[in-house]
Amino acid sequence: MRLQLALDLVDIAGAKAILAELSDVIDIVEIGTPFILKEGVHAITEIKQAYPSLSVLADMKIMDAGDHEARLAYDAGADIVTVLGVAADTTIQNVVRAARAYQKEVMVDMIAVQDLETRVKHIDKFAIDYICVHTASDLQQQGQNPYAELKLLHQVLQHAKPAVAGGIAADKLQHIIPYRPEIIIVGSAITGKPDQRKAALEIKEAMK
Amino acid sequence: MRLQLALDLVDIAGAKAILAELSDVIDIVEIGTPFILKEGVHAITEIKQAYPSLSVLADMKIMDAGDHEARLAYDAGADIVTVLGVAADTTIQNVVRAARAYQKEVMVDMIAVQDLETRVKHIDKFAIDYICVHTASDLQQQGQNPYAELKLLHQVLQHAKPAVAGGIAADKLQHIIPYRPEIIIVGSAITGKPDQRKAALEIKEAMK
Repeated sequence: MRLQLALDLVDIAGAKAILAELSDVIDIVEIGTPFILKEGVHAITEIKQAYPSLSVLADMKIMDAGDHEARLAYDAGADIVTVLGVAADTTIQNVVRAARAYQKEVMVDMIAVQDLETRVKHIDKFAIDYICVHTASDLQQQGQNPYAELKLLHQVLQHAKPAVAGGIAADKLQHIIPYRPEIIIVGSAITGKPDQRKAALEIKEAMK
Repeated sequence: MRLQLALDLVDIAGAKAILAELSDVIDIVEIGTPFILKEGVHAITEIKQAYPSLSVLADMKIMDAGDHEARLAYDAGADIVTVLGVAADTTIQNVVRAARAYQKEVMVDMIAVQDLETRVKHIDKFAIDYICVHTASDLQQQGQNPYAELKLLHQVLQHAKPAVAGGIAADKLQHIIPYRPEIIIVGSAITGKPDQRKAALEIKEAMK
């Protein structure tokens, strides 16, 4: 299990300040969607250059133009790029093809997929690296969580490795760890804490 | 009917060069998703400052964090922001609420929505300004088009105004104009032509 730190509500300077405290604790740093929209893919380059040994995930949430948008992120230095599970099969396959050309990786974000089991089984044949169940932040505020979806992923995935995101905090790990996801994505439960390093170490310790 | 020019595969300098030729012909300039991902929302600001009388649509394709991502774009100078029709209702409603706070507009992009009629009827109650049927560029290459979806929109919309995107060119307008969409979105059929002004004028003339 690897810990992915999502950096969403930051700029490049803010991201570097957080990573100065946490880069040795986390496994993957996520350049979050609002962070990319704010700064452009240049944000990926800055963070990868500052922390070359850290895996960098670009949360591009690709919905169309799979080849072009994936290349934008890989060219900028991303190790992993996200594409939406609600996108057309062709778009997902175009991102996978770009990933293979760059010898990089792809995560499919299943946010807002309606029939999750059917869709997971279908796209699991596409040589995707990670499939991520993800409760939208707009829905976390209504009390929703990704635990049942993670259980389903655990049961049906044959090829891709499972990942999980959406309001995960130290006191929620009891619902996550039994399913051994390859990647656990945490954002504000680390970045929103006064002592970010302590919060990250606590989660990392619980993942052992 | 208004003509929206989609600028996707450009940087800021390239966009300004295109607009120097076309700004008096088009009604709305779209800062396309790959353009925003490449440059960040700064691209919106640059184009709005250069052409303050032109409506600027930011194709943010918001999927989550509706309030935050919409404000990023409106703060940067966008007049219209896109949110995905496949996003959660709450996300769409959060974008609409941000639009009202800024006295700006929202377009919902119905790309990849499975049951279009049901979804259109449902979200048409959300005080959205425009609902856009949109064939993904990755699917245009397989011969798909948005004409039947535009006809459906024409039949069922009660509140939002219709828009259409996806491979539209001068010789395709015969399938579009009978349904009188409020916004017709054209990209490579203008930007990919040797004489972009002639191509834009031809489309604009056919829309009269």
